[in-house]
Amino acid sequence: MEAGRRLSCSTQILGDVVIDVPSSSQVHKQVVRKEAEAHDVALDPVVRLHFVEVQEPNMHDPSGDLRRLEDALEFEWRLTDLGCDVLVLQQLQSALRRGQWKVTVAVHAGRQIVAVWPGFREHVYGLAVDVGSTTIAAHLCHLATGEVVASAGVMNPQIRFGEDLMSRVSYVMMNPGGEKELTVAVRAALNDLVLSVAQQTGIAQQDILEATFVGNPIMHHLLLGINPVELGGAPFALATDGAITLWAVEIDLAIHRNARIYVLPCIAGHVGADTAGVLLAERPDLSDKMSLLVDVGTNAEIVLGNNQRLLACSSPTGPAFEGAQISCGQRAAPGAIERVRIDPQSLEPRFKVIGSDLWSDDPGFAAATAGSGVTGVCGSGIIEVMAEMYLSGIIRHDGTIDGDLAQRNPRIQSDGRTFSYQLIGAVGGRPALKIMQNDVRAIQLGKAALYAGVRLLMEKLGVDKVDRIRLAGAFGSHIDVKYAMVLGMIPDCALDQVSSAGNAAGTGARIALLDQSSRAEIETLVRRVEKIETAVEPRFQEFFVEAMAIPHLTEPFTRLREVVALPQRLPAKSEGVGRGRRPSHRAARPA
Amino acid sequence: MEAGRRLSCSTQILGDVVIDVPSSSQVHKQVVRKEAEAHDVALDPVVRLHFVEVQEPNMHDPSGDLRRLEDALEFEWRLTDLGCDVLVLQQLQSALRRGQWKVTVAVHAGRQIVAVWPGFREHVYGLAVDVGSTTIAAHLCHLATGEVVASAGVMNPQIRFGEDLMSRVSYVMMNPGGEKELTVAVRAALNDLVLSVAQQTGIAQQDILEATFVGNPIMHHLLLGINPVELGGAPFALATDGAITLWAVEIDLAIHRNARIYVLPCIAGHVGADTAGVLLAERPDLSDKMSLLVDVGTNAEIVLGNNQRLLACSSPTGPAFEGAQISCGQRAAPGAIERVRIDPQSLEPRFKVIGSDLWSDDPGFAAATAGSGVTGVCGSGIIEVMAEMYLSGIIRHDGTIDGDLAQRNPRIQSDGRTFSYQLIGAVGGRPALKIMQNDVRAIQLGKAALYAGVRLLMEKLGVDKVDRIRLAGAFGSHIDVKYAMVLGMIPDCALDQVSSAGNAAGTGARIALLDQSSRAEIETLVRRVEKIETAVEPRFQEFFVEAMAIPHLTEPFTRLREVVALPQRLPAKSEGVGRGRRPSHRAARPA
Repeated sequence: MEAGRRLSCSTQILGDVVIDVPSSSQVHKQVVRKEAEAHDVALDPVVRLHFVEVQEPNMHDPSGDLRRLEDALEFEWRLTDLGCDVLVLQQLQSALRRGQWKVTVAVHAGRQIVAVWPGFREHVYGLAVDVGSTTIAAHLCHLATGEVVASAGVMNPQIRFGEDLMSRVSYVMMNPGGEKELTVAVRAALNDLVLSVAQQTGIAQQDILEATFVGNPIMHHLLLGINPVELGGAPFALATDGAITLWAVEIDLAIHRNARIYVLPCIAGHVGADTAGVLLAERPDLSDKMSLLVDVGTNAEIVLGNNQRLLACSSPTGPAFEGAQISCGQRAAPGAIERVRIDPQSLEPRFKVIGSDLWSDDPGFAAATAGSGVTGVCGSGIIEVMAEMYLSGIIRHDGTIDGDLAQRNPRIQSDGRTFSYQLIGAVGGRPALKIMQNDVRAIQLGKAALYAGVRLLMEKLGVDKVDRIRLAGAFGSHIDVKYAMVLGMIPDCALDQVSSAGNAAGTGARIALLDQSSRAEIETLVRRVEKIETAVEPRFQEFFVEAMAIPHLTEPFTRLREVVALPQRLPAKSEGVGRGRRPSHRAARPA
Repeated sequence: MEAGRRLSCSTQILGDVVIDVPSSSQVHKQVVRKEAEAHDVALDPVVRLHFVEVQEPNMHDPSGDLRRLEDALEFEWRLTDLGCDVLVLQQLQSALRRGQWKVTVAVHAGRQIVAVWPGFREHVYGLAVDVGSTTIAAHLCHLATGEVVASAGVMNPQIRFGEDLMSRVSYVMMNPGGEKELTVAVRAALNDLVLSVAQQTGIAQQDILEATFVGNPIMHHLLLGINPVELGGAPFALATDGAITLWAVEIDLAIHRNARIYVLPCIAGHVGADTAGVLLAERPDLSDKMSLLVDVGTNAEIVLGNNQRLLACSSPTGPAFEGAQISCGQRAAPGAIERVRIDPQSLEPRFKVIGSDLWSDDPGFAAATAGSGVTGVCGSGIIEVMAEMYLSGIIRHDGTIDGDLAQRNPRIQSDGRTFSYQLIGAVGGRPALKIMQNDVRAIQLGKAALYAGVRLLMEKLGVDKVDRIRLAGAFGSHIDVKYAMVLGMIPDCALDQVSSAGNAAGTGARIALLDQSSRAEIETLVRRVEKIETAVEPRFQEFFVEAMAIPHLTEPFTRLREVVALPQRLPAKSEGVGRGRRPSHRAARPA
């Protein structure tokens, strides 16, 4: 057994322990939901291969091999004023002679020779990496074609130091030098990813000559070996908000020894290189439409604007949208409920779990989910069940669970002072899955924070509507946006203008990998973004309080009409809910 | 005892062994004769310190600490578009807060922030290193004042792999991968030097932020971890002839982790960065005088030219000038004869040894040299004794020792077919010190090669005289140039225009360290140098054969008149030697 490992079945606990379940021993693999999104990317990679035939040396022209290589590169490829890494110098003479004076060289940014191989070579790879707090995802791209040839994701092993970012920063504050452990952990995971994508593709790790990174500010700092404690408290000063180019070896990344790393710029202390990636993928600055970009995690990063102005802020939504701090919540993994429908008349639920295409009332559902069982509710499931509870009248406008309905269906149960809604009763040794009043409150707090952030930016920009909404990240990919609207997480917008941006941060990393001109563009763009700090804006608190309630369904909101127009989603009965005219969430805004 | 060490007094040799006497156990320390020469150097170091006060961060202006540092550097020092090393980013936030927002940063080449310290700091150091085949010398300079604050020299530990360059290349050819051992050895010695100069000065190794290097092509390649085998045979192709800037960590140099290294350019396969250093120290291209620069070692590097043209070649002088392959020869060390006078009438010698100011016929000489004894003859001593033998008639024009003189003085002894001249008879257990006929031949071969190289360049340039001669290197520093002229090592020149350039290569390294603009200048200059390969020039062989003889003293040469004008050096009697008119060395040149 590896050092530090114990078999839980044969270990006696004698005192306080910290138990770390290694991901390799997990029966149900975490679903790392970060696919490479289809996205048109201009192909102009920073690393290019050039095949050249080099003049042999002779006694009458005693120039160095490098100079004759440079002459060939200038003559055949118009490359001038090149630098050359020392490692290349160490390999150059052997490569030229083994290749009979024909070699392929890799040139970085048209300026630096970073690799040399004997003979002709056409394959060179780059890695685009999204370092999330929870998961790390990498896409291996063929730099000459832009094709994604392999993808891999792992859990961020820093989780053992704290589930969320702030507990990791707390760990560092309480354990001086602890930032080094966090840095070592994330870099080790990155090397696992490198190994994984290389093995998938059958290439050597040294065939990867470039990597790009996005991540939130704390991940950004820890990746680079920068202590993140300054990001743990006001004024949340970043070490740097600029883009960074460095050597792969400087972050211990086991790819080609001369590979360079490009880390996208951060925007502000809470708005990181991941948001820069989203910006690069979405480019709201290229349109006159007012775009809202939202990346929901423990914090929501929000960008609003168009080709005139761009504003960004971060809003403390808390971990509820990720299924944390929810009594029956769990991460997205097989067995987690992700889709919910509640019959507004019977108040009976049906649901789907990750890992099966069947609804719970379909024949064969039990057999299909026998492996994992139904274990909890993931982030998108939480949003659906809560919205469905609201649409079926189980939850009131103010978020309280309506105990009067206990008469209609025993799933509405009293817990003493409050009520809960039971999705599944206790079966065998498994406890019941219930939505508790506190769970609803946690979601209310999160969605109010998100909405308040959006409202703050809208007010700063002087707009009262947005033209399009793009939801980035895993959460944005998996929630049904209609439900987000029902709950008032996001502002009104034509439903066909609301869509998932997928893993836009990762897409941004991929664009920076494949199109070198995009690097200057994003560096310029993030400087143009106006940073709003929600913590020092009194209006944010006002908006937050106002946004706690769930919008009334009686308003002639686009979203409501579209939601009710979907017969499968809202049976006719629901049209009757709250028929009277009441002030909507929006109308509640102070004049 | 350290690993691999044995006490010779208690070790039995059971088979073939390679014995390496560690320099630390040597009773008589090697004299590493590479002092820093006084030399006017324009002071414009590539690394400069800048003290700045940085704006504190605040919630309303959430920029990174680096950006505010850059703003301060631009405002106070007009530095723009700076890059920043990752190590600095890792230390920046702590430095700013510990320094209460006042820090000192080191900026490299006005472009890259390479170090940061809290508060005010004024000391920053650089190291100029001359990596010779035999010795390695380093000068530590204060970069703000240009002052040499410490110097240190060590033997090049690669000597255990071969005394001269070609035997080291042979070692690599016969032991694949052996170049790594040679690289490790020289880098370890460099770190010993770093430690030594740091301790002398009382600074930390991390206070050294820049280093410059010169060395012959093989030392240059081995320092950089480049296999030197291509330099061991035609066409003697360098990996690169360009200047190289790299990180100190890339050559494992234990100075500041962000320190950069600048290696001066090589000129050709036999004419290295050491000659580039000599060029930079001497700048023959700035004068219309025809200058001859000669750096004598196992090869002599020769540069000839002025502000119109510059030619360079290397000539295979062999190791005789360094005291090797001479029966009584030895390296420059206490006990080695370095000055010799022979009375032309009695043919009796007197001499001085390294480590004592007394001549051998001075009272107290025996007591003064009792410690070391008189152990051999060093390179400059060989030249003197041979020239004095010629001036006193012991050696004839063709280099043979005149056996007829055995009648006049028993020091001229027959060795069977040839004769020898005994400097010291056998005393106690020590053998006699004699100049053998073969020793004279070895010096003749060496001086003929040197002279032939010079003549080749003179012919290429179409000149038949030079205006000034500068002798670089340890040999050039210690020989009496008059004797070199007597032997015909160097061409005719007014004696006051012949001088030692000292360790000009090391001076060049120091100039490159202290004056960054000199780097572009030397890079441009070496490209202008016309490289002559003696091995493919038939005229070189002709000149070589012609130059074997020792020039007649009857010619009205400047050097002869000046030599005889010195009463102490040449007694009146010598004027009589070879009074008849005979063709001189120069007159022997084919029309």
